[in-house]
Amino acid sequence: MIPQDALSELEVMLGERLSTGKSDLALHGRSETYHPEMPPDAVVYPLSTEEVAGIVGICARHGVPVIGWGTGTALEGHASALRGGVTVDFRHMNKVLEILPEDMLVRVQPGCTREALNTELRATGLFFPVDPGSNASLGGMAATRASGTTAVRYGTMRDQVRALEVVLADGRVIRTGTQARKSSAGYDLTGLFVGSEGTLGLMTELTLRLWGQPEATAAAVCGFETTGGAIEAVITAMQMGLTPARIEYVDVATVRILNAADGADLPERPHLLLEFHGSDEVVESEAARFGDIAGDLGGSGFAWATRAEDRTRLWSMRHRAYHTILATRPGATAVVTDVCVPISKLGEAIARAADDIAASPLAGPILGHVGDGNYHAILMVDRGDATEIAEAKRLSDAMVAHALELGGTATGEHGVGLGKLHLMEAEHGAAWDVMGAVKRALDPDGLMNPGKVVRQN
Amino acid sequence: MIPQDALSELEVMLGERLSTGKSDLALHGRSETYHPEMPPDAVVYPLSTEEVAGIVGICARHGVPVIGWGTGTALEGHASALRGGVTVDFRHMNKVLEILPEDMLVRVQPGCTREALNTELRATGLFFPVDPGSNASLGGMAATRASGTTAVRYGTMRDQVRALEVVLADGRVIRTGTQARKSSAGYDLTGLFVGSEGTLGLMTELTLRLWGQPEATAAAVCGFETTGGAIEAVITAMQMGLTPARIEYVDVATVRILNAADGADLPERPHLLLEFHGSDEVVESEAARFGDIAGDLGGSGFAWATRAEDRTRLWSMRHRAYHTILATRPGATAVVTDVCVPISKLGEAIARAADDIAASPLAGPILGHVGDGNYHAILMVDRGDATEIAEAKRLSDAMVAHALELGGTATGEHGVGLGKLHLMEAEHGAAWDVMGAVKRALDPDGLMNPGKVVRQN
Repeated sequence: MIPQDALSELEVMLGERLSTGKSDLALHGRSETYHPEMPPDAVVYPLSTEEVAGIVGICARHGVPVIGWGTGTALEGHASALRGGVTVDFRHMNKVLEILPEDMLVRVQPGCTREALNTELRATGLFFPVDPGSNASLGGMAATRASGTTAVRYGTMRDQVRALEVVLADGRVIRTGTQARKSSAGYDLTGLFVGSEGTLGLMTELTLRLWGQPEATAAAVCGFETTGGAIEAVITAMQMGLTPARIEYVDVATVRILNAADGADLPERPHLLLEFHGSDEVVESEAARFGDIAGDLGGSGFAWATRAEDRTRLWSMRHRAYHTILATRPGATAVVTDVCVPISKLGEAIARAADDIAASPLAGPILGHVGDGNYHAILMVDRGDATEIAEAKRLSDAMVAHALELGGTATGEHGVGLGKLHLMEAEHGAAWDVMGAVKRALDPDGLMNPGKVVRQN
Repeated sequence: MIPQDALSELEVMLGERLSTGKSDLALHGRSETYHPEMPPDAVVYPLSTEEVAGIVGICARHGVPVIGWGTGTALEGHASALRGGVTVDFRHMNKVLEILPEDMLVRVQPGCTREALNTELRATGLFFPVDPGSNASLGGMAATRASGTTAVRYGTMRDQVRALEVVLADGRVIRTGTQARKSSAGYDLTGLFVGSEGTLGLMTELTLRLWGQPEATAAAVCGFETTGGAIEAVITAMQMGLTPARIEYVDVATVRILNAADGADLPERPHLLLEFHGSDEVVESEAARFGDIAGDLGGSGFAWATRAEDRTRLWSMRHRAYHTILATRPGATAVVTDVCVPISKLGEAIARAADDIAASPLAGPILGHVGDGNYHAILMVDRGDATEIAEAKRLSDAMVAHALELGGTATGEHGVGLGKLHLMEAEHGAAWDVMGAVKRALDPDGLMNPGKVVRQN
């Protein structure tokens, strides 16, 4: 429990922007997936970096855990208050602070969502490409090193965050990085904080790279006789130097669900959903080349979405897929796998996963960002059913073990949170201890999002 | 001085691959630029990771500094043995270990040079793009977060290093990263070691990203009436989404030297040297669009190098420019500046630097990777002349102070070494203390390349 002194100090600073209401605590203890509810002792709603520094300083003096909160869309219980403490909800720190069009940069507060940012950018000819599906906050996306459908062309959050303002565990405020395109001036602290899941500090400002809105965009769906053929088409396209902006796989189970529950009308076979960005000529030429590749590998029924509305419908459907899949089983939640493997091993990894799921009593449609070698199985379970959750975790752990054998990673984009922590030693070996040493150096009392990323003290 | 016990242990392990010969020590204490000679007490030539781990372990037990050495081409005294110790020369660990064409990756030892790698890759259709000019080792390039002429399109070493094997200060061997294209599995240790200049550990294996050899390549030179016009052309091209593979600036002073001393025949005005990579259509279209931009901004005398020999001659000349410039003053060495600013501020930064140099008794031709906002002034000084060196450092520090005002960095690609250490506090503020905390966590005894990057103990 949080000491009354700490609460009083927070209340003096924040007034009504400190909440200990039961529903507020419950909301901030909830997870999108199967993780049990773990509420904090208090939620605070800061307006400024100074307030965040003050909050962290008070918590440091009283030994109270501090957990950052964006939109609550993390899938692995990243923001669960494992040891109670104070959750810092950034919803009011959601401004676009400055757009720098000549330098193709933007400064934002951490609570700004990606959709809000892109709405503000619409008239500038620029856009922010990273698209994890949900309308996540940019601070949360940086904290989990998110990526999603467009990473195959634009990279992940690692590639977009140019500079940060961070409140450290002792309340100090630092700035990392600069507005220059590159720097060799010492350790890459920006890169260290991106993906640290709030365990090293809280980001209070982000400088993000922007990209030119593509002159032309073309999207398509293409069915394949086999999953192997679809994956082979992806590998061939990447090797030939094609630069799709999106290249997504959905398996037959997913297609059936999209047809039945989301108005799709796709042949019942594995599909790739694609998008190309560029000049008119480049888009046309890449799309044609992909068509040739697909044709050679059992692809058929190529359908181009040339109108903006059709493309929007396609990607909305893709983004809704997680919830559409869940809705097929009322009351279900999911264990969502997130392995990422070298693309040459992707066919093997998906085939084994599909076999394992077929042999299990659980349903687990597979879909993913296959241009990156990253796919997800949505293993549906009953929230309260320990047997089902254990079976889903068994399947997930087997996929991870196979991915590590193949030179891959336990998590391509969702992060560690609570759900992948037990896999870190297998993935990193002694390097996991180095992460622990970095954690202790920056947060010696272990108060920043305790119990996540590194070994528990 | 190194304890005799440590030397004996190293000799038992390495035999003749331990050297304490005077000329060998002197060679490994030398710097490419103005820094005074600082030789180590011994040089070792390991053959394997196990030997590197053994060497570092012996040094750790005896409190002896350890310094990595690639090809000795760093410009800021990165490998100077400020406190003596053992220099680990990676020349025998220079193998290409494995090429993974489907995944567009390669595993190399740190002593492999970029030219050697590209020679091995020639038949694969792939290449490694980062090109700092000199034929540096890939380990050294990763350690300094090098970039060079092609970073504007392909990124820096930060963007190419997918995974590492590292020997830590206590002799433990860790692996960071995986062969997957992305990961969210904890702190980005790979990114932390890239650019750490050997102060956190020694890289013993690198997994690097490869790129497809471009279908078509076109290079060109283009003179401009003013530097401002040349820079404006660069900014416009980048904003319009052109993706030049190289976009280099040389000032009038550099042009005069290249004409007089390297067989060039360029009009005496500022120039851009350009290269485009891509499909035939893309290269043709981007080149034409750049021609239009340049024409509007006082560019003229556009000359295309269509034959491979002509392109090679152009870039060899560019790469030799540093030595060609130095050769204009027999016996001279240089203080080489390396600021990098947001591209919108580049014209302002170069104009101020040129004015300052014009008002100084020193000569300092300016050239640089302007697509990244990065430029160098080659401030020529007499190696022994303290007054000249002080004047050059004054000019360099003024450029850095201005760059920091403009949101830039003290060093875009050369790194900190000895020469930029005094600027780190101004650039990073309290974040520099965080770098120090990371250093102490990974190297508590301060034996890995001591006196570099972080505050001296």
